[in-house]
Amino acid sequence: MPHPSSAFPTLGILGDGQLGRMTAQAAIRMGMRVKWLAPRASGPMNGLGEGTVGDWKDPDVLRRFAHGCTVVTVESEWAPAEHLAEVLPEGTALWPGPETLFVIRDKGRQKQTLADAGLPVPAFRRCPAVEDALAAAHHFGYPVLLKQYRGSYDGYGNATVRSDEELRAAWPDLADEDGLLVEAWVPFVRELSVLVARRPGGEHVVYPVAYTEQRDHRCHAVVVPAGIPEAVAREARRVGLAAVEAVGGVGLTAVELFEREDGQILVNELAPRPHNTGHYSIEGSHTSQFENHVRAILDWPLGDPGLRAPAAAMVNVLGRRDGTPSAETVRAALEIPGVTVHLYGKTHVRPRRKMGHVTATGTDPDEVRRRAEDAAARIVL
Amino acid sequence: MPHPSSAFPTLGILGDGQLGRMTAQAAIRMGMRVKWLAPRASGPMNGLGEGTVGDWKDPDVLRRFAHGCTVVTVESEWAPAEHLAEVLPEGTALWPGPETLFVIRDKGRQKQTLADAGLPVPAFRRCPAVEDALAAAHHFGYPVLLKQYRGSYDGYGNATVRSDEELRAAWPDLADEDGLLVEAWVPFVRELSVLVARRPGGEHVVYPVAYTEQRDHRCHAVVVPAGIPEAVAREARRVGLAAVEAVGGVGLTAVELFEREDGQILVNELAPRPHNTGHYSIEGSHTSQFENHVRAILDWPLGDPGLRAPAAAMVNVLGRRDGTPSAETVRAALEIPGVTVHLYGKTHVRPRRKMGHVTATGTDPDEVRRRAEDAAARIVL
Repeated sequence: MPHPSSAFPTLGILGDGQLGRMTAQAAIRMGMRVKWLAPRASGPMNGLGEGTVGDWKDPDVLRRFAHGCTVVTVESEWAPAEHLAEVLPEGTALWPGPETLFVIRDKGRQKQTLADAGLPVPAFRRCPAVEDALAAAHHFGYPVLLKQYRGSYDGYGNATVRSDEELRAAWPDLADEDGLLVEAWVPFVRELSVLVARRPGGEHVVYPVAYTEQRDHRCHAVVVPAGIPEAVAREARRVGLAAVEAVGGVGLTAVELFEREDGQILVNELAPRPHNTGHYSIEGSHTSQFENHVRAILDWPLGDPGLRAPAAAMVNVLGRRDGTPSAETVRAALEIPGVTVHLYGKTHVRPRRKMGHVTATGTDPDEVRRRAEDAAARIVL
Repeated sequence: MPHPSSAFPTLGILGDGQLGRMTAQAAIRMGMRVKWLAPRASGPMNGLGEGTVGDWKDPDVLRRFAHGCTVVTVESEWAPAEHLAEVLPEGTALWPGPETLFVIRDKGRQKQTLADAGLPVPAFRRCPAVEDALAAAHHFGYPVLLKQYRGSYDGYGNATVRSDEELRAAWPDLADEDGLLVEAWVPFVRELSVLVARRPGGEHVVYPVAYTEQRDHRCHAVVVPAGIPEAVAREARRVGLAAVEAVGGVGLTAVELFEREDGQILVNELAPRPHNTGHYSIEGSHTSQFENHVRAILDWPLGDPGLRAPAAAMVNVLGRRDGTPSAETVRAALEIPGVTVHLYGKTHVRPRRKMGHVTATGTDPDEVRRRAEDAAARIVL
C-alpha cells in the first residue's frame, strides 16, 4: 500500500521486539511512517508499519530497508548497526551512532570509558585469566561479580562468587577468550535509573529519577518519584547525564545506578535505547521515552520529561508457562481501576519472558504501585 | 504475515479515518489484532493492522473481512453495518447494533426517540413540505434551524433561517423527499459533551462533562473539567446516560448537549462511536474513549473514565491549504512544553479538514488550553 505522508519523516527500526513496538507507536501517532527489519517476526511489530523479515547483516537487505528512511535506530545494542552504517544512503541518519554502541556493548570498555570520564563506578578489573580474577577478588574482597564483556543481561552471563573455590568453579563456563570483567560487589540500598534523551548537537532532557526493583536479576517494578532525598536525586541526574555524554549517546539512553547507604551514586550500566525502567513514561510523563527517542534521533525539539500525575508505577508482566498466549485473564486485570495494560503481541510465551507491563498513575507512590502490582499479578498469559 | 496472538481478540473496523486509527492503536496496545475494511485508503489506517480496500457493501468482501473477527465496529454511523449484519459469521459480534445506527442516522427519528424517553430536546417538528416548515417556524418563533435528516454534519446540510423569506429560499437546496427537520433555536450559553461507554448488558461508565467550543460549525477546542456548576454537571451526566440508554448504545456513544442560561440541559445530538470531544482522554484520562470503546464492544470490564491530571484540553489541527501534508511546522509545535501531538497520516490536506489534534494536561484549565491552542496554531500541514 503506498504511504500517505511522504513529506513526513520515515523511521527505520532494526529489531522487532517491544521496544521497537512502543517506539513505532509513538512515531505513528505523530504521523510518521515506520519500517522495520528483523531476522524473524516474534510478534510485537506485527500490524505496525512496514516489516521485512530477512538477513539483517546482508548489505542488499539493509540497503532496501534503509531506502527512504529519514533515520534508522536500533532497539537493541546488539542489532547490526555497523553493517547498516556501511550501506547507509546519503541523507539517512543512524542513531545511536556505531561508536556509542561499540563502547556500550563491551562492559569492560564501557566501565573504562565511564571511569576515564571521572564518573563513579564500582571498582572493576579486566581479567584475561583466572589468576588475574583471583588477584582482583583478593584486592576487592569477596563477594565479587564475574561478568561477561558481551551479551550478558538480566542475570545471564554473570555470577556472584564468594570464595576462590566458587570463582574457580564459575570461570570456565563464563570466560570468553579475553576472560571476564571482575567487579567489586556494591552494598547498595536501592537501584535507580535515569533516562536521558539527547539530540545530535547535545541538547538534552533528563527524566526524573526512577526507583527500580529487580527480582531474579530482572526488572520487576519501577516507581517515580523514587522516594529519595533531593540531594541524592540531583547527584543521580548529574551522574546520569554525564555518563550519557561520556559515551556520546544520541536518542534515549538509560543509565542504571546504585545508591549506596551513604547516598553515593555509582553507575551500574548503560543501555543506548528506550529501557524497561522508562515504560511508565507512556502514561506517566508529558513526553514518553519513546516519543523523546524519536524526536532526539530526528534532531527535533525534545519534550517535557516531567510527570503528568504526581506518581507513576510500572510492573512487568512475565510469562509463567510455555505456549501460545491467551487473553483469558486480561479481563481480571482490567477490573483494577486506573491501570493501563500493555501487551506486546509476542506469539509465544515462556517462563520469565517479558510479555507486557502495567502502568498506574495517581497521587501516592505506594498506592499506585499496589494497583499496578495487583493488575499485573492477575495476568497469566 | 501470520498473526501472533491467535488466542487474543481480533477487532474489525469498518472505516479508515482517524477514529478507526485511534481505536486500532488502543486495541493493538492491549495485544489485540486489528483488521479494517474501507472503500479507499485515505491514510490514517496505513501501517496499522491488516487492511482491505474494497467494496464494503459487497457480501463476499464483507464475509472475508469479518472472518476471524471477534467483534466488528464502525467508525462512522454511515458505515454499512446493516450489510455486514447480513453476513456476520456465527460468534462474531457487531457493535454498535444496527438498531442503534438506524435510530441515530435519521435526526428526526433520533430526536423523537429521545423525546419519547422523556429527555429534554429542543422543540422540533418533522416537516414534509415547506408549508409545514413555515407553520413550525411561526409556532417556535424565528430563528429556526433546518436540518437534513441524514448525512448532515459539521454545518453541512443545516441552515439557520430568520424569516419566511430565508426559510423559503433555503428549502429547495436542503430538503429531501421527506422534507426537513425544523428545530427551535436554543439560546445556549455553552455546548457540552458527555461520553458514555456501555457494555451489551448495560454496565457503563460516564466521562466527566467536557466543555466544547465550535468554530464555523466545527469542533475547535475541548476542555475538561467544563467549569460548570456541580448541579449542571450532574444533570448533564444524567441526561447523557439516559440518552445513550434510550438508543441502546453499546460501545462508546457521545452525547452533545446545550446548556441554557438557566442551567437547563438539552440534548443536541448523539454519535454512536468515539468522538472528537473525547480525544483529550488519550492523555487526559485513566482510560481513553478508544480503549473503553474496545472494552465495551468486547464485553470486557470498563476502565476508569476519570482524569489523570486535574485538567486537560484538546485543540484540533485543521487543514489550511490544498496539497500533500508536510511535517515542516511540527517542530515548532513541539517547542511548547507538555503537549502531545497527534497527526492522522492523511495523504491529502484540504482547508478545514481534520488533520490532527493537540492535547495538553496540567492543573489549570485555562493555562492548559492556552498551551494546546498555541501548539495547534503552529502546525500548518
